[in-house]
Amino acid sequence: MRAARFHAVGRPLQIESVERPQLRANDVLIRVRAAGMCYSDIHVLDGVIAADPPVTLGHEIAGIVEEVGSGVTGFGKGDRVLVHFLSPCGRCKRCLQGKGMQCLRLFEREGYGFSDDGGYAEYCRVDAERLIKLPDDLGIEFAATLGCAGITAYHAVKSVARVKMGESVVIYGAGGVGLYALQAARLAGAYTIAVARSEARLRLAESLGADHVVNAKESNLRREVRRLTDGAGADVVFDFVMTDESIRNSMGMLASGGRLVLVGVSNKPITIDPQITVLKEFSLLGSLVGTKDELEELVGLAASKRIRSVANRAFTLDEVNEALTMLRRGEIVGRGYVVP
Amino acid sequence: MRAARFHAVGRPLQIESVERPQLRANDVLIRVRAAGMCYSDIHVLDGVIAADPPVTLGHEIAGIVEEVGSGVTGFGKGDRVLVHFLSPCGRCKRCLQGKGMQCLRLFEREGYGFSDDGGYAEYCRVDAERLIKLPDDLGIEFAATLGCAGITAYHAVKSVARVKMGESVVIYGAGGVGLYALQAARLAGAYTIAVARSEARLRLAESLGADHVVNAKESNLRREVRRLTDGAGADVVFDFVMTDESIRNSMGMLASGGRLVLVGVSNKPITIDPQITVLKEFSLLGSLVGTKDELEELVGLAASKRIRSVANRAFTLDEVNEALTMLRRGEIVGRGYVVP
Amino acid sequence: MRAARFHAVGRPLQIESVERPQLRANDVLIRVRAAGMCYSDIHVLDGVIAADPPVTLGHEIAGIVEEVGSGVTGFGKGDRVLVHFLSPCGRCKRCLQGKGMQCLRLFEREGYGFSDDGGYAEYCRVDAERLIKLPDDLGIEFAATLGCAGITAYHAVKSVARVKMGESVVIYGAGGVGLYALQAARLAGAYTIAVARSEARLRLAESLGADHVVNAKESNLRREVRRLTDGAGADVVFDFVMTDESIRNSMGMLASGGRLVLVGVSNKPITIDPQITVLKEFSLLGSLVGTKDELEELVGLAASKRIRSVANRAFTLDEVNEALTMLRRGEIVGRGYVVP
Amino acid sequence: MRAARFHAVGRPLQIESVERPQLRANDVLIRVRAAGMCYSDIHVLDGVIAADPPVTLGHEIAGIVEEVGSGVTGFGKGDRVLVHFLSPCGRCKRCLQGKGMQCLRLFEREGYGFSDDGGYAEYCRVDAERLIKLPDDLGIEFAATLGCAGITAYHAVKSVARVKMGESVVIYGAGGVGLYALQAARLAGAYTIAVARSEARLRLAESLGADHVVNAKESNLRREVRRLTDGAGADVVFDFVMTDESIRNSMGMLASGGRLVLVGVSNKPITIDPQITVLKEFSLLGSLVGTKDELEELVGLAASKRIRSVANRAFTLDEVNEALTMLRRGEIVGRGYVVP
Repeated sequence: MRAARFHAVGRPLQIESVERPQLRANDVLIRVRAAGMCYSDIHVLDGVIAADPPVTLGHEIAGIVEEVGSGVTGFGKGDRVLVHFLSPCGRCKRCLQGKGMQCLRLFEREGYGFSDDGGYAEYCRVDAERLIKLPDDLGIEFAATLGCAGITAYHAVKSVARVKMGESVVIYGAGGVGLYALQAARLAGAYTIAVARSEARLRLAESLGADHVVNAKESNLRREVRRLTDGAGADVVFDFVMTDESIRNSMGMLASGGRLVLVGVSNKPITIDPQITVLKEFSLLGSLVGTKDELEELVGLAASKRIRSVANRAFTLDEVNEALTMLRRGEIVGRGYVVP
Repeated sequence: MRAARFHAVGRPLQIESVERPQLRANDVLIRVRAAGMCYSDIHVLDGVIAADPPVTLGHEIAGIVEEVGSGVTGFGKGDRVLVHFLSPCGRCKRCLQGKGMQCLRLFEREGYGFSDDGGYAEYCRVDAERLIKLPDDLGIEFAATLGCAGITAYHAVKSVARVKMGESVVIYGAGGVGLYALQAARLAGAYTIAVARSEARLRLAESLGADHVVNAKESNLRREVRRLTDGAGADVVFDFVMTDESIRNSMGMLASGGRLVLVGVSNKPITIDPQITVLKEFSLLGSLVGTKDELEELVGLAASKRIRSVANRAFTLDEVNEALTMLRRGEIVGRGYVVP
Repeated sequence: MRAARFHAVGRPLQIESVERPQLRANDVLIRVRAAGMCYSDIHVLDGVIAADPPVTLGHEIAGIVEEVGSGVTGFGKGDRVLVHFLSPCGRCKRCLQGKGMQCLRLFEREGYGFSDDGGYAEYCRVDAERLIKLPDDLGIEFAATLGCAGITAYHAVKSVARVKMGESVVIYGAGGVGLYALQAARLAGAYTIAVARSEARLRLAESLGADHVVNAKESNLRREVRRLTDGAGADVVFDFVMTDESIRNSMGMLASGGRLVLVGVSNKPITIDPQITVLKEFSLLGSLVGTKDELEELVGLAASKRIRSVANRAFTLDEVNEALTMLRRGEIVGRGYVVP
Repeated sequence: MRAARFHAVGRPLQIESVERPQLRANDVLIRVRAAGMCYSDIHVLDGVIAADPPVTLGHEIAGIVEEVGSGVTGFGKGDRVLVHFLSPCGRCKRCLQGKGMQCLRLFEREGYGFSDDGGYAEYCRVDAERLIKLPDDLGIEFAATLGCAGITAYHAVKSVARVKMGESVVIYGAGGVGLYALQAARLAGAYTIAVARSEARLRLAESLGADHVVNAKESNLRREVRRLTDGAGADVVFDFVMTDESIRNSMGMLASGGRLVLVGVSNKPITIDPQITVLKEFSLLGSLVGTKDELEELVGLAASKRIRSVANRAFTLDEVNEALTMLRRGEIVGRGYVVP
């Protein structure tokens, strides 16, 4: 079968022919139908995120079950499925506390699309434990993008920031994750303000229900957000940009007691002002991806049309490197995905 | 009456004679019996914290009621009282949510010892709303140090970090606030590790119930804390030092899902690594002082001997500048206080 | 001025002429424009809720400021206002914890429409502290019904049950409070099932966004709810009926770990099965009304059209006794209100 | 080997000879050294709790590993171990939320001492997943009683009631679970009041750190508790008695916003007053046993002497029926245990 594989930092993915994977007892073979593209792929190429080369990238994986291992129950050929690509151990202190994203062994275990072969391939082998069955009426491309962008946003909004009805929320950065976070915050009953540098993204944010949009290039960004929040500032800012500038802006937008949620990957240190952090009792909260339980919930919410798809640009396996270049340049509005 | 007053940044306090304050309807005149000394006093002298000169410093104020205004009920001459020196408005959104330290008008209102005359004086005038009556068996010097050091620690442990039984907690910095935080964390059922550079402070921490003490100069500080927490790292670190070095160490000591609580005042930016913050889902939590409700609770816990005094060095009003110099040099172990 | 006043248990309200109230320094005189009708009025007539006769009933009060006391700031003649009819003290332990509905002195203080004259009158005198200014585009009848029905629902959903995105919620009883609770739960991102005996109410629930409606007369009520929640049962049931039958049904609908919220007033003891309560770790949560902070939030959500009005039947002051009889008989679908 | 087995409701346990169990791949064979006695055993005999006869009772099981199955890692012969007798599935929605006691399949799975053979036998076979290794310095009898009494108390205090520092807590019933709950509440920083009918139990409660003890026979029980809590009432009552009388008393002792935690098993309906529940916003919280994670924490706290043993009466296997009779009559103060 054909796959887009990562071999070394600084080199493009190699589209090559590999063996179809053999199944162990608890494995399921998925015929990949859509694999969403995430900025983390670029971080792997750049060496910011460590992966185990050679490895097939693609961690937003949806498809059709082709074959199941001897010990698998609950899944059968033809089932439409979505992969939860991280593998909390289920037994450590954090897992037993319901904090799978803080699993003490999370990075020692399977990570499809990073340490284990992922979805930029015709087939993908996954432990049955990590699969979610999809409702019939949920588009497979939409589903794929929930696997990382969607669940990352949902977890950040629901479990990390714990956004509540009536709160004001800023979405700082309106890429794939941001657009799902916007929808999740709105679904939780919050007022939403989307901040981005691209007018196209701001228009999309508006169409997805943002109460206000503000261009990040605006000189009075912080003042504008304060104005839109009755002078008090926002209750929550989700910062998907994570530069010194965005952090400074984010903290300048927050009300006393506000929460600043950091989502995404960056190896550049950020600077914070401890004084305002203490005087206003801010919380800075790191948010990783999300648990399988949250992903199941999100799939249900998507199927019932409370969350809408931002998957809007398909690529073939052969186009994957060009597509990643477009992603790097910010040329994809919404989420791109590969159809192998 | 005599008072130690702040006139300008960079100049020592001036011990001078001022008028005894006139009472308004809701005021109480307190004969100050002990006024704890806090590093914030030094921040005022250095211009790091803004105050309204000329003003009498001293925000940890305990004493005896001398006189009450015409509208005051519930207090009378001779009552032993403690001052809650900040004044949440009680009506804004945050106050109604029970978050008085995040009051949207906190710094527009009375702040005894900063914007309004404080306790380094023979008498101090305070709105009756801000007073707590003291149990007979609670030493007045002990009580005074609860007014800022104690309540800051208690709030950080109980309401910001929400320390729970069985958690492991690092107290990084064992000054007055740290030593109360150590006791509060222990009272909440946590395992405690005290980190400091001074052996005298570590010995005091031990005598107050620290399960382990580690000298911060130790080259393997982070590894040592990890060893003491079964390799997993601490659930919570209270960082009272707030330098780049301490923050780096603190984050290196934390378990996945850990909370890093920032307490105190500093105008030096700090640098954090966003990657570990996200990958381990850390929370960085600013913590200010504490509410009157929390101070009342703490007074009760102190009176019932669950929290012990760290007030252990008395100074006269005339010695206040020397005492502040000692405080600046780290020569006071425990909490110093002025007896006017 | 004319007012509908309660004189004794068992007797209808008396429509009579009384003096226009005199203002004290902090009072505001409101020209009542709409006063919502609540089942609690009937409880007062029946002696189930204690009131202080003679007293003007009506605790859902909206109108126009006619005059303000000498000490009032922030309100002036012509302002459109809504009354928060309960008066938490703002100083007790619970108030300082942000739990105004658990104020230790709640029932010693003003309760407009119960212990103090309420809104079934041309004018009503209220402490300025209890007033909320209304946005221009919010209908005054709608606003009135938020004052008890709306805020009771909002508080129960947001602060007591703490309904979260993706949860399944049963609204058991679709009167005024139930219909607002339905909307609040939906706004919080939950799946909603409305249960009632009246088809008219179920239709209204559907039009307000209920995902499912079930007639309470159905023999398989519990099984039906379980079917609609994938067999697991609901995460939350709001029981507005509070009879032995409804409680038994409610507990039979709940998933393990479920929350059963009791809202409303009843003097009939209810029976619960401790075994299922323990084995499934149910929570039974009493919910009273809501805080002023919550009411302000709700007003904002209503003004931004996230909550829709259920005020749909107007009565004159002279019709108030007939209207209460209709309410008692369940003949009012939605919320009735008096226009004095 | 010899075992005390349950054959039918209404009949005493039968001490008989049975085969030593065969190990499957993931099993461990434990040589039982202590098996604590729980009132649930009596509920099984009485038919209040369903069990699967014939079955060996005893669900508080500590001992020494005798043999391990072929697939077991992490345990070896000679290890001192404690059994977590319930088996949450680890995969359902509740388990992934960290709520193992609300597992949707909890009662379909192993329950040692109820549906699967327990510890009133020379040997006991347990899935390795359910084992906790004991620290060397923790007495095996003490450890055994943590397996149900201890963990039930710890879970109720920490995870259900979420007792916080400075709260006032009533322990209503001072049997084995109550005495551990008393210690857990105290460890969490609460003020504790023990209520029981037996002076011997009240003396034991006192020696374990109760701040106050009150005899339940006292006519002014509720008033006495109110007096001891400054008139406000208790923040939390743990009701281990669960009769109409105890519930009425418990609710009469609670402060506004108070939590009433129901622990234990009873098939007798209880009556509650919905009016006070709503007016004071009480929470009634069912609490089952506790998770393995909590049990590991508790073992650590016991080993570090923050919780003390209440195991104080040993019986042989032959004495088990007499011992259960004593337990039924309330003649065992503290926790009894069987040494097979």
